[in-house]
Amino acid sequence: MLIECIPNVSEGRRPEIVEAMADAIRRTNGVQLLDHSSDASHNRSVFTLAGDAAGVEAAVLALVERAVADIDLRTHRGEHPRLGAVDVVPLVPIEGVSMADCVALAKRVGGEIAQRFGVPVFLYEEASSNPARKNLEDIRRGEFEGLAAKMGTPGWAPDFGPAAPHPSAGATVVGARMALIAYNINLATDRLDVAKKIAAAIRQSSGGFRYVKAAGFKLEDRGIVQVSMNLTNYEKTPIFRVFEVVKREAARYGVSVLESEIVGLVPSAALASAAEFYLQLDGFKADQVLENKLRGI
Amino acid sequence: MLIECIPNVSEGRRPEIVEAMADAIRRTNGVQLLDHSSDASHNRSVFTLAGDAAGVEAAVLALVERAVADIDLRTHRGEHPRLGAVDVVPLVPIEGVSMADCVALAKRVGGEIAQRFGVPVFLYEEASSNPARKNLEDIRRGEFEGLAAKMGTPGWAPDFGPAAPHPSAGATVVGARMALIAYNINLATDRLDVAKKIAAAIRQSSGGFRYVKAAGFKLEDRGIVQVSMNLTNYEKTPIFRVFEVVKREAARYGVSVLESEIVGLVPSAALASAAEFYLQLDGFKADQVLENKLRGI
Repeated sequence: MLIECIPNVSEGRRPEIVEAMADAIRRTNGVQLLDHSSDASHNRSVFTLAGDAAGVEAAVLALVERAVADIDLRTHRGEHPRLGAVDVVPLVPIEGVSMADCVALAKRVGGEIAQRFGVPVFLYEEASSNPARKNLEDIRRGEFEGLAAKMGTPGWAPDFGPAAPHPSAGATVVGARMALIAYNINLATDRLDVAKKIAAAIRQSSGGFRYVKAAGFKLEDRGIVQVSMNLTNYEKTPIFRVFEVVKREAARYGVSVLESEIVGLVPSAALASAAEFYLQLDGFKADQVLENKLRGI
Repeated sequence: MLIECIPNVSEGRRPEIVEAMADAIRRTNGVQLLDHSSDASHNRSVFTLAGDAAGVEAAVLALVERAVADIDLRTHRGEHPRLGAVDVVPLVPIEGVSMADCVALAKRVGGEIAQRFGVPVFLYEEASSNPARKNLEDIRRGEFEGLAAKMGTPGWAPDFGPAAPHPSAGATVVGARMALIAYNINLATDRLDVAKKIAAAIRQSSGGFRYVKAAGFKLEDRGIVQVSMNLTNYEKTPIFRVFEVVKREAARYGVSVLESEIVGLVPSAALASAAEFYLQLDGFKADQVLENKLRGI
């Protein structure tokens, strides 16, 4: 069973504090710290860890313990919006685990955070059954500074914990979502209007695919343009379908695809589904992948 | 580090003997038995195991010990050609390990088999530096019954062990090769001539790709034909290239590809390379695959 977890923490300037949080994760059994990076202007750090449900739960609680001890939102400044010391904890099913399992884990972890540390917890995305509280931006609007007032208004009681923010640690948002793939397609043109029109054609907000966020950018140094995307559910809106539509839309303007790129990590299943599509693979099963078989999936 | 090993053993009729060999592998640390299957008419069993070098070495030696004790080639009958009790031991690099590492392991394992059990060992494929002894069929020609005479002729001294066959266990062939992918492409036609012409176009033996073996077959029950292939080096002759050429050749006869299928296991890297090709992925690295990152590759 493999769950990915990407906690975002409101500290990106004091390396010793970040390192202490990383160590708290590393010391936990059943989980691996895959990556962590800090941004000083955001004053925020992102940890990537993966493991089984018990390992992820223990690692998140160890991280929250350190963050609540070391971070004070009353003096925290940074460009990135935030509600709490541990700001958001997304849980992502990777292998041998369902979204329902991750939702159950989000609720268990959220309950524990509230009980052990007195930090109110809001559930989001798949873990939330309230449409007004699925979207992280909606929950975070007003930030730490506006949180006490917001929690006093109808509909904004937390899912777990006290009815007011923790004095120094604010609140934490915990939820479950699909793995997000950062995916860019570079076009053999310098026409920004083409990239912007294609981005508009494929993103949900303007009528495109449900699980695509997209924008058009210029890559000044290379004299080309890019359709930059987040794919928020690669099972329901797979990479290959997005790629084929971008290629077709570009052709409409006489433009060809130069290359595409995946930024950061991608689940092996997202690549396998592209191979299945293009090779017209019939009846292919995940356990035919040697590495999956080895892990007993 | 991950090495796959697929020992072929000359026993496929006595389940208790096969099960004892499977248990010998299961009891070994550092290796997992992924699969085993027996064929009564071949009187032969195939084991699939994977692990690190030390685990694979120990498992193969444990298997040979059981096979030498339980199998007597003097009374063995079966349709499949064979030289010994443990007939052939291919070692396959999967991840974090080079072909050179597998060649070194083949020599180490071969030396140990000869020394511990008095069974002569022939190296083959990448582990052999003798062109006449790279091909398994060349080494196995004459089978167990002709082995004593063959080993007496120039050029057929074994790489390790005694100059004559083991009385009951014959000889064992040990080597290193790339993972083999069993890959079929089904065509939307009942014209066997089309499948045969395409098979001839793509296989090495008649001028096609170096690492493709292919034949055309009729799938009587479905009224269609199939190009059935073994891809013997998916890095140098990748799946997508073979698929695209078959599709193009089929179009020449007005035939389209119905579907393709992978039979059995496939390394994750072989699927990733198809995704890279079709999505025109630029600068993609194996450690961007979440599961690879987890295993520390």
